[in-house]
Amino acid sequence: MDLNVYNGRKVLITGGLGFIGSNLAISLVQLGAQVTVLDVLWPDHGGNPFNVEPVRKDLIVNICDIRDKYAVRTLVKGKDYIFHLAGQCSHVLGHVDPYPDIDINIRGTATLMESIKENFPDAVIVHTSTRGVYGSVDRLPVKEDAPTNPKGLYEISNLTAEKIVNFYGEIHQLKTVNLRLSNIYGERAQMRHGKFGVVNWFVRKALDDEAIQVFGDGKILRDFLYVEDCVDAILKTGASDRAFGGTFNLGNEEPCSFIELVKTIIDVAGSGRWEYAPFTKERAAQEPGDFYPDISRIKETSGWQPETTLRDGLLKTIEYYRQHRAMYW
Amino acid sequence: MDLNVYNGRKVLITGGLGFIGSNLAISLVQLGAQVTVLDVLWPDHGGNPFNVEPVRKDLIVNICDIRDKYAVRTLVKGKDYIFHLAGQCSHVLGHVDPYPDIDINIRGTATLMESIKENFPDAVIVHTSTRGVYGSVDRLPVKEDAPTNPKGLYEISNLTAEKIVNFYGEIHQLKTVNLRLSNIYGERAQMRHGKFGVVNWFVRKALDDEAIQVFGDGKILRDFLYVEDCVDAILKTGASDRAFGGTFNLGNEEPCSFIELVKTIIDVAGSGRWEYAPFTKERAAQEPGDFYPDISRIKETSGWQPETTLRDGLLKTIEYYRQHRAMYW
Repeated sequence: MDLNVYNGRKVLITGGLGFIGSNLAISLVQLGAQVTVLDVLWPDHGGNPFNVEPVRKDLIVNICDIRDKYAVRTLVKGKDYIFHLAGQCSHVLGHVDPYPDIDINIRGTATLMESIKENFPDAVIVHTSTRGVYGSVDRLPVKEDAPTNPKGLYEISNLTAEKIVNFYGEIHQLKTVNLRLSNIYGERAQMRHGKFGVVNWFVRKALDDEAIQVFGDGKILRDFLYVEDCVDAILKTGASDRAFGGTFNLGNEEPCSFIELVKTIIDVAGSGRWEYAPFTKERAAQEPGDFYPDISRIKETSGWQPETTLRDGLLKTIEYYRQHRAMYW
Repeated sequence: MDLNVYNGRKVLITGGLGFIGSNLAISLVQLGAQVTVLDVLWPDHGGNPFNVEPVRKDLIVNICDIRDKYAVRTLVKGKDYIFHLAGQCSHVLGHVDPYPDIDINIRGTATLMESIKENFPDAVIVHTSTRGVYGSVDRLPVKEDAPTNPKGLYEISNLTAEKIVNFYGEIHQLKTVNLRLSNIYGERAQMRHGKFGVVNWFVRKALDDEAIQVFGDGKILRDFLYVEDCVDAILKTGASDRAFGGTFNLGNEEPCSFIELVKTIIDVAGSGRWEYAPFTKERAAQEPGDFYPDISRIKETSGWQPETTLRDGLLKTIEYYRQHRAMYW
């Protein structure tokens, strides 16, 4: 897939100061796109103005809420590509407060889609959802047509957002793509707490030479994808006409246990240690067990494939945070 | 199932001035329950104070919005059973305005569940959803574990509401039941427009001696359930401990074509006529094709089964509207 299609095109990234959004923004600026990022810098989330420091003179940063329909209406106008990454992303916040998931992830997505429908229906919209929409799974690797049994409000709200995106695609003929992201790690993720972004949280623990807690027996399998690979996939699906209307797993086809992950992190960092810890009640209730995706659909449709090994990804990640620790700790 | 369990118990019915809610309220009063109905009488919807006329001295009517968290918090207190029927129920409103589905059906359900969790976690909660959550189906009759591919925002919002109800059941240990209702018809449905409640709309056309429009070739199969049977099922599942945590189809296992339905209505009414009509673009996009449910799960769990033939149900329905036409036309 030729990413030169983005050269000179107008792009909006919601959640564009966050982890994946900012890496995407940097890539798009480098590809010659005219990038606007929308972000509200919601407390405890990934938004960090420093994330776009390398390109800050070459993009527009617009601070506003995805639920602000008047602002969103203005910001979507004239955009050729809209990457929708804004969202509440704590897996457990919904246990104590159900409204952020509903208001930001569901209503916010509807606000964006409604604005696009009314103002710029030719835009391509790529929405990032989560592999959490599957919940516990019977068969591995997980294909996109597996049953969706999301466990928490975060996962439920992402599934609903996907369905809203598809609704606008089908009923209002918008060009939409849903991507179900696995565990993405790498530069520019928040490092202040472990409520989401488990790999990066473990990286922080290692860099601080602290104990990494591995829940349960540590043998649960997951897939971990480096953020540059993730950004590459987002760009390639956005540039693929054949992807429109589709829902795609976006992760790594090679499963890895938490023990293996943790040992690699400690080895690459040269610091840190690990210990077993019992699941908390909340984590146990939310824990869907082994997961790794079948990614043949996105590979066939967009020509994308993961390029970075876990070790190489961790090396780059750790180097970044060593250099910019003050901006993230 | 012994419905005497409701005798002397405190019950809240959201949407209790609507079609099914009011029939449920009347039954519960007759069973000796202390009934409060919550309804906002939302324009164009089924709420009608006349619906509870037969029992109006024996229940409490509280007009408020399901999204009004302070009011809802007060109303759930001390209730043994909460039947959640309030909802935006137009299938096509979401095509022009996505927010009522999201705000009323999704956020409203969360508001109710949050209030119950905080204030009266021992209550039994029965939530009525729609068979529309399945979307187009591959196999008939449809079992509860069939894939859910809701087409419109109404159906998406109902599926999300189900998942929110289940979330509170699982994570917060509330006693919850989801019922996926098919086409219910009978006394006390609104008769002013045909945006929902197709059988009742056809009944009105027949009583007005007008032409009933049958879309497509009229051979699409559906199931039609009489409201007294529906109320009986709601009461029996609410009274069944074994039902808690479950999701159940609630419909009629005997499929019927639209042509057959319309001919029966015209025959029973002794007036009206019918004609073929092409699908509108919106209806075609939303039309999921043949549907009738497998209802063995609810039968086995609650001991319920449908008792009323289509002809008998229509006879009672038509008699009611002949008598009370002024309150519904």
